[in-house]
Amino acid sequence: MSADEAPGKPPHTAGEFDLIARHFAPLAKDMPGTFGLLDDAAAIAPPPGCDLVLTKDAMVAGVHFLPDDDPADVAAKLLRVNLSDLAAKGARPYGYLLATSWPHGTPEATVARFASGLAADQSRYGIGLLGGDTTATPGPLTLSLTAIGLVPAGGMVRRGGARPGDVVAVTGTIGDAALGLRVRQGTLGGLAGGHAGALRTAYLLPQPPVAFGPALVGRAHAALDVSDGLVADLGHMAKASGVRIVVRMDCVPLSDAVRAALSCGAAELTEVLTGGDDYQIAFSASKSNFNVLEADAARCGVGVTAIGEIAGAGAPAVEVLDESGRAMKFLREGYTHV
Amino acid sequence: MSADEAPGKPPHTAGEFDLIARHFAPLAKDMPGTFGLLDDAAAIAPPPGCDLVLTKDAMVAGVHFLPDDDPADVAAKLLRVNLSDLAAKGARPYGYLLATSWPHGTPEATVARFASGLAADQSRYGIGLLGGDTTATPGPLTLSLTAIGLVPAGGMVRRGGARPGDVVAVTGTIGDAALGLRVRQGTLGGLAGGHAGALRTAYLLPQPPVAFGPALVGRAHAALDVSDGLVADLGHMAKASGVRIVVRMDCVPLSDAVRAALSCGAAELTEVLTGGDDYQIAFSASKSNFNVLEADAARCGVGVTAIGEIAGAGAPAVEVLDESGRAMKFLREGYTHV
Repeated sequence: MSADEAPGKPPHTAGEFDLIARHFAPLAKDMPGTFGLLDDAAAIAPPPGCDLVLTKDAMVAGVHFLPDDDPADVAAKLLRVNLSDLAAKGARPYGYLLATSWPHGTPEATVARFASGLAADQSRYGIGLLGGDTTATPGPLTLSLTAIGLVPAGGMVRRGGARPGDVVAVTGTIGDAALGLRVRQGTLGGLAGGHAGALRTAYLLPQPPVAFGPALVGRAHAALDVSDGLVADLGHMAKASGVRIVVRMDCVPLSDAVRAALSCGAAELTEVLTGGDDYQIAFSASKSNFNVLEADAARCGVGVTAIGEIAGAGAPAVEVLDESGRAMKFLREGYTHV
Repeated sequence: MSADEAPGKPPHTAGEFDLIARHFAPLAKDMPGTFGLLDDAAAIAPPPGCDLVLTKDAMVAGVHFLPDDDPADVAAKLLRVNLSDLAAKGARPYGYLLATSWPHGTPEATVARFASGLAADQSRYGIGLLGGDTTATPGPLTLSLTAIGLVPAGGMVRRGGARPGDVVAVTGTIGDAALGLRVRQGTLGGLAGGHAGALRTAYLLPQPPVAFGPALVGRAHAALDVSDGLVADLGHMAKASGVRIVVRMDCVPLSDAVRAALSCGAAELTEVLTGGDDYQIAFSASKSNFNVLEADAARCGVGVTAIGEIAGAGAPAVEVLDESGRAMKFLREGYTHV
């Protein structure tokens, strides 16, 4: 946070140590092996019989969030996009490491607000801070988070492994965040306030199905989180599994707000299916396991909807069929072409 | 890398997937559980009886390195400042996760050069890439790395734990990097070319005593890496251990290049003791364990020098004595005052 930082000074300034002590050390206080963030590193003793699942996502102001978003929301989103990856792999979250690079002159209240967003989500998800780094930057706020989860040994659910005959399903609803960003940017009008607010919140504060994730272990053949757009992400699953995936458009779960935006012409189906930022889980499972998972999800308060099936051999691809069974064509699939 | 990224697009662009596939996936190929970086997360199975040691440091162009430093050197430094933390905790390095945010328009050759620096150090230290993220930024190159090491269960060496009567020692030599930065910036002249080059290299490419680190387990009472300046870092040890540390200045190991800079008046002792970026290990151990550790270090090609002792009770502090035994006063101690 010191404005006078530059190469030629030690890597950490007194101001940075103060920020860590005041705002980040309290986030580590319940985590064994973190020593109040006063040591060089944390030591964790993984429970016997568990593998660690590791993921790391970065977010940059102006690229992944808007510079005037509430810092508490930004913190929660940073955490949740990583917890989404863990959940999709069947892992329960354990803890995280955090690197924050703050623009020169950032008010300490901004850092405090950011930390409050982390604290709230730590309680929500039962996790804690394990360590990290705090620096200054002449650029925009830049964040990266390494999340650590636990799965039974050998149990991580992969993208590959989908089998012909599997049901393909998703949690929650699709497209809310993509349209929510347009609400946030003021380019999607004409919706009732309640709908607009719901979409906006979906963009700012994803709700990954963290509690449901561990149920996938040993039951789902393949899973991944929907972050780059449903069609693109199912494309990753198709490619990794060497299968063709058929999706029935009329089965894709849409919220009332998304349906309203579609029916009044304010949004297009393509945005919904390719927009990304959903942070739901797409998975494939046998029909009998799907029924078990549906019940598990319900117990976690998570909706699960079958949207299609693994169609078997053929070039890996995703085919989306409309109500009359005709294949739909998308010009772009979440910006990554299968 | 795509210049058209902005909120409103999925979190990852096709260009970023390409960069990962071409430059980062090869760095993960020998690491089990990373799946070619094509899954959402990595799974690692910690060896039984081991704790994981986790550390995370970030580096920003213009703050922690110069924007025109060789990207291969920047990559190596990023890795090594984290391996330095692991070594000081007694951990052997296992792997790392990496987040890179590249300025718009960065040539792909720069990314390739950066990856080549990682590849060389992976071979040097016997580690591999476990995962991470690649994004664009409108700001300076911003990097963060989470390093994971292994120690015998319960064996992590902490900052606290130094005991009265312990020998206080450091690896390598002190002050080279602080003066090396001045060489790099053109503000330290008058040295022979060989000395100037040695200092410059010490700044650009730290040589943390990674092989020696694990020897500390069960032998050192306290240890930490020297990154914020010898006096400041010993201050951390004094505070965490609740002890007073006495250092004899004439015992602090200095390279020929640093001695030359001091004797010609081009540099001052304060810079050497408080400049930081040394990435050596300071530790305390009983006299008999110090002798064992000295022999261990020699087998690793690492120099170890006793520089003082733990003086026992009293307010936690670091006292540096000159040749005649008088206490020296430093106006700033690596920018963090004990």
